[in-house]
Formats: sequence, C-alpha cells, structure tokens
Amino acid sequence: MAVITLTSDWGKKDFYRGAVKGAILRQLPEAVIMDISHEIPPFDLNQAAFIIRNFYSNFPEGTIHILGINTEASIESPHTVVFHKGHYFVAADNGIFSLIFDEVPEKIIELDIIQDSDYFTFSTRDVFVKAACHLAAGKPIEELGHRKEKVMVKMAFQPVISADLIKGKVIYVDRYGNAFANISEALFKSTVRNRKFVITFRSPNYRITQISKSYMDVHEGEMLALFSISRYLEIAINRGDASSLLGLKLDTSVLIEVE
Amino acid sequence: MAVITLTSDWGKKDFYRGAVKGAILRQLPEAVIMDISHEIPPFDLNQAAFIIRNFYSNFPEGTIHILGINTEASIESPHTVVFHKGHYFVAADNGIFSLIFDEVPEKIIELDIIQDSDYFTFSTRDVFVKAACHLAAGKPIEELGHRKEKVMVKMAFQPVISADLIKGKVIYVDRYGNAFANISEALFKSTVRNRKFVITFRSPNYRITQISKSYMDVHEGEMLALFSISRYLEIAINRGDASSLLGLKLDTSVLIEVE
Amino acid sequence: MAVITLTSDWGKKDFYRGAVKGAILRQLPEAVIMDISHEIPPFDLNQAAFIIRNFYSNFPEGTIHILGINTEASIESPHTVVFHKGHYFVAADNGIFSLIFDEVPEKIIELDIIQDSDYFTFSTRDVFVKAACHLAAGKPIEELGHRKEKVMVKMAFQPVISADLIKGKVIYVDRYGNAFANISEALFKSTVRNRKFVITFRSPNYRITQISKSYMDVHEGEMLALFSISRYLEIAINRGDASSLLGLKLDTSVLIEVE
Repeated sequence: MAVITLTSDWGKKDFYRGAVKGAILRQLPEAVIMDISHEIPPFDLNQAAFIIRNFYSNFPEGTIHILGINTEASIESPHTVVFHKGHYFVAADNGIFSLIFDEVPEKIIELDIIQDSDYFTFSTRDVFVKAACHLAAGKPIEELGHRKEKVMVKMAFQPVISADLIKGKVIYVDRYGNAFANISEALFKSTVRNRKFVITFRSPNYRITQISKSYMDVHEGEMLALFSISRYLEIAINRGDASSLLGLKLDTSVLIEVE
Repeated sequence: MAVITLTSDWGKKDFYRGAVKGAILRQLPEAVIMDISHEIPPFDLNQAAFIIRNFYSNFPEGTIHILGINTEASIESPHTVVFHKGHYFVAADNGIFSLIFDEVPEKIIELDIIQDSDYFTFSTRDVFVKAACHLAAGKPIEELGHRKEKVMVKMAFQPVISADLIKGKVIYVDRYGNAFANISEALFKSTVRNRKFVITFRSPNYRITQISKSYMDVHEGEMLALFSISRYLEIAINRGDASSLLGLKLDTSVLIEVE
Repeated sequence: MAVITLTSDWGKKDFYRGAVKGAILRQLPEAVIMDISHEIPPFDLNQAAFIIRNFYSNFPEGTIHILGINTEASIESPHTVVFHKGHYFVAADNGIFSLIFDEVPEKIIELDIIQDSDYFTFSTRDVFVKAACHLAAGKPIEELGHRKEKVMVKMAFQPVISADLIKGKVIYVDRYGNAFANISEALFKSTVRNRKFVITFRSPNYRITQISKSYMDVHEGEMLALFSISRYLEIAINRGDASSLLGLKLDTSVLIEVE
C-alpha cells in the first residue's frame, strides 16, 4: 500500500487536517497517512515548494503527496496530478509544480474528478483525496483525467550572476534560524570553481570565506555557511539563531564575491 | 481495526500526546491512531465542539474519537462514551456532547472503568484509552458501563431571530482568519428565503449581499460570505485574513437583515 | 513490528520531520511511526529529557525512540543507542541519556554506522534512522556498533536539601501553565515524612500547605500542588494558567519548608 503524505497551510488547530484524514480512511481504510507540515504560511507557494523539494525524495517511490495549498481550481489553475521521479503530486496547477521541479514533470494529468459537494472551498478533501486513494490503490494515473504537456510556470526569483559574483537572497528560514539562500551548490561550484570567495550580507562585518560540512566545524556561537540537506546555501550559527542574531530574513540579499 | 482519533488542548510540545499514543499501542498494538488537533485553546469546550462537529463524519463509521479536554470526572461530569451517527466519542460529560450534537446521542454509557493510578489528572490516558481500545477491538459499548438517558446540556450562544433579522456572533476563527458565525445555513434559508439581504458587522462599510460558492467568486483581497464546509456562515477574504483585516474576532456581532 | 517514536526540536513547519519519516518508510515500509513532540526549544536537552522521561514508558516494550536534538556527533558525543527498561533510545551521547535515566543504562552501544552523505548536519535521517530500522526489524542491538560502559554525564540542577527544607526550581512549564519543579515525590516523602509543610514561591502570599490528587480538589481559579503524571512537584491552578498568573517561569525558586 502506497504512502500518502499531507503538506498544507491549514495549521494545526483547525478541523481541516482531521477531515482530510477521515476522508482518506473512509475510501481506503488501510491507507498509510503521513503528516509532513501544516504550518506553511497561508497561501505561500514558494515556502511550500521549498519544503516539498526537500522532503519528497526521502519517501519510497510510488508515494502520493497531497499539496493542500491554494487548492481552488480555476480555468488557469486546474486540479492536476503529476508523476515525476517516481512520485505522485496532487495539487491545483497554480505554479507550484514549476517551483518544485527544475524540469517539466514526466506525466501531467488534469483531473476529471467531479466533486460531490456543492461548494468549492475544500478541494483537498473533495477532489485530491479521491485522486490520491485511486493511486494508492495501485490504479493507473491515466484514469484520473486527460494528459497535458505543460504545467503553469511561476518563476522563483533567480540570483544575478556574473563571472565573479553571485547575488541571491534568503528564500527560507527554518525553526533554528538557519537561513537558506536561492544559491544552489551547482551554481556556486560552476561560478566560484576553486577560487577564493567571500560571502557577505547586511554588514561588512558579516563575512564567511569557506564552506563547512558540519555545524560543529566552528565554535558554538560562530557563523558558518554550508550546502547540506537542501543543496542550497545555508547560513547558520552553531547552536544559535542566525536569522535573529544576524538579521537574515526572507529576501535579505546574500552576495558571493570571488576574490 | 477501527480508527482512534485524538483531539485535545494538550498542545504539541508536551509529553501528553506521546503518553496517550503509547498507552493505546501498549493495549492494542495494531491500533490506527490519527491526530486531529491538539491546539484547542485550553479548557475551551466551544472551540473543541466546533472542530469535532466538522471533522468527525468524514471518518469511517465505527471510528472512536477521544476528546481530551476538561477530562477530570466529577459527579456532575462523569466519564462517558456516546454512540451517535455511527461514531463513538469518549469524554467527560461536561457539556461537550451537547455542543457537538443537535440531538440527544443514540447511546450514552457512563464508564465504570476503574483507573489504576492514584491520581486523577490524566484521565485520557488512564480511562479513555481503555474504553477506546475496548471499542476498537470490536467489543460492545454496553460492557463499558451503565446506560444513561441524557447528557449534560450546555447551551451554546444562540442567534436572536425575528422575521427580518438574524443577529449572531463569531464563534470560530480559523488559521486563515476566516470567521465563522453561529448562523447555520438552515436558519439562514428558513429566515431569508428568497428575499434580498445584507450581512453587516462592525462598520456600515462592511456589507455583503450575496452568498458565494467559492473564495474565488470575488477578486483577491475582496470579502465574501459563504456556507461551505461547516454549514455555518463564514466571512472570508479571498487570499486574505478576514479576522485581522476586518476586525472579526470571537464574539464579534454579525447581522443579517432582510431588505 | 516495533514502534518508532520521534521527538525533536525540528518544529512543525520545516521539512526535517517529513524527510525522516520518508527515510524510515523507504527502509522499512511497514514501520509504525509515532510523532511525540517536535516543539522542544532548540538545543534544550533538559526540556527534551523531561518530556522523554514522561512519555516513553507508556509505549510497549521494544519501542525505539529516536531523539532528534543536538544530533551532530563528535569524539566526546558519539552516536549511540542505549537499551534500558525494555526500550531503545537512539541519540548523540551528549548527556541526554544521563538526564533521562537515574541509572547507567543497561546496554550502551556506540554506533559504527557509516553515513552515505557527504555532510553531517542531519544525523537523524542519515544515521539514527538506519539504527532504528535495524532494531524495528528485530535485529540485535549488538550488530550496530561496539559496547561501552558509560554515557556522558550531564548534571541536572539538583535541589538543596536539609532536614526541614527543600529548595528547588521550576524545570518545565506545560501548555496549560502548570509548573513542574525538580522536586520528586520520593524526595518530598523522605524529607517531609508526615510533618506539616508549606510550599512557597515568589511572594509570601503564595503558600500551599497540602498535596492534591486532582485539579478539581480546589475551586476553579485556585492554586494547588500535586505529584501526578511526572512524579515531580507540579504547581497548578484549576482551569487556569499558573505560570502567567503566579509568575512561575523556568528557574523560578520553589521552597518546601517543614513547619
């Protein structure tokens, strides 16, 4: 039995999560349901995409990921399931697929599911759950609707690059205050190569000149930079909160200059 | 194997949730446990009842719902399990059943379970789990105690109604800032019928004159009213926070006037 | 199939929890995973230990508890699994075992697991999951590494005791505002015996002279003291928030004087 994961901006207080879990179990009593995060800032597709990019490939192939954010369908953003790199993703095609994947997904099916209820505010329960249970039961994705060639493309803010400079910005801050910039390890390597570099942000005093492998590469309370879990540049303080101590918020500029 | 759901005001930080899950698995290793919400404001039965009303019927029939709020028993509020509309609910009979159901529940059993521990502050683990595991194992509810005819009645604040006016108030605000009033769709329909109406609250500038089916019925940033998931009047802003932007808090008055 | 529990300081928003759950299911598709708490204050071993002490024994024997806090290994704090009182605990040996258990754990195995990834910031996913799945599959703990005789000892702040006085402090505040002091029921009984006593804190007006069995032993809004779930002295207000109303914070002194 395939796993169904839930990622949303519902929060934890309300009944939305409970209603969706119930609806899954009603259709597929033996379903394996995994909460990922329900604390995505309301309506924030960029934050959602960053989280999804970073967890999904840990799950077994065949896992179905329900993306419960901005789920109302419109002509421009129809309910859709995509299959990519062995995983299924059910969402409204509002640009989120383009923010998660660097390529066009392998299969894109616009859902033909007719919902039973007479209102349209809770598509996750009324539409996505049906698609997810269909897939979790091992039935083919093609039966869910009709094939499309493209998803809606929403451009994430891209760093500005020259031969000796990368100018990016913070796109995610985690609970510890670690700040992630939109500078991938691949971009860093292809631009900086083996040359010396300095990472700066906010104040001339904040300078980092090497990439670490572990938070403990520096003393407690010292700052460091690394490409670790996310493969994006992460600025952190060993056992400290880089965001509050260094003023790294969403959209703070981060520069890498080759010397 | 029946599902056991957990709804409480324990919060997420503490060990209460872990202790209850452990106690369930110790008694019934194959139990299927589903977290619903643990973020109900402490001791707030009204908020708890609103959440429970809105999720429970999504689950398969036979599901057992543990209600972990204000669980200490007293002579007036004994530990009780009720069966209603195909579902089981285990709680202290402190009025919560009357806030969840519009009718007297079909079966009401006051629990005769003797708890092992010598203190009485954690009834969910020490009493409710035993009742839930008994039911989840398929054993009859009647074995859990003795039958009663009534539950404690706690009156929710009711709207004031005349031929041309419904005066209600906000009873729930969700994570998005959507505000739910204690005005049901049934009451709205029977009072307003097919006549024109205006919904007002707080300021003469805040006027809504139609019922929507979808948040996207209005432009982003505009307000709307709908009866959707909860079947209670919901005032929302498409992609916005109605509570903070319009000042809709718990107990804010909401008026529906027929024109 | 043994249960695997997750306790951490990851918070709920981020992808860390999702990545770990996915990694478990990828290695052991039939694993039973239970979230305990992910809201431990970042890096706070004392808070983590208090929570773990209080939930773990509720689970069935053989349960594996992954402790995802301060997980980076060093020579002084190697990745370790201990077996104690029928349960397994996987963590970095940074002192947390000594804060959870009053004794040296029965078996201590330093892990020899080589992690696949080339960075060291996410040991829970890259090392602990492997150990946990090994144990959950019923394989022997001895295969995971080499035996040690001791764990790192981190001393929790101990109360000061004389014949007629116990001076402790608040070590944990739960979601309700109940404050737990580092004064165990055993210490209280051996010091106070059957003599009269007074518990004081912060103000001469705050005096409690008996131990309750239930929050409802006092009227709503009144304060009380009890040893209940945690077996540590808990100062509470029936249906109220003792922490905010009485000023009981972490490290607030609590005195018990025998009269």
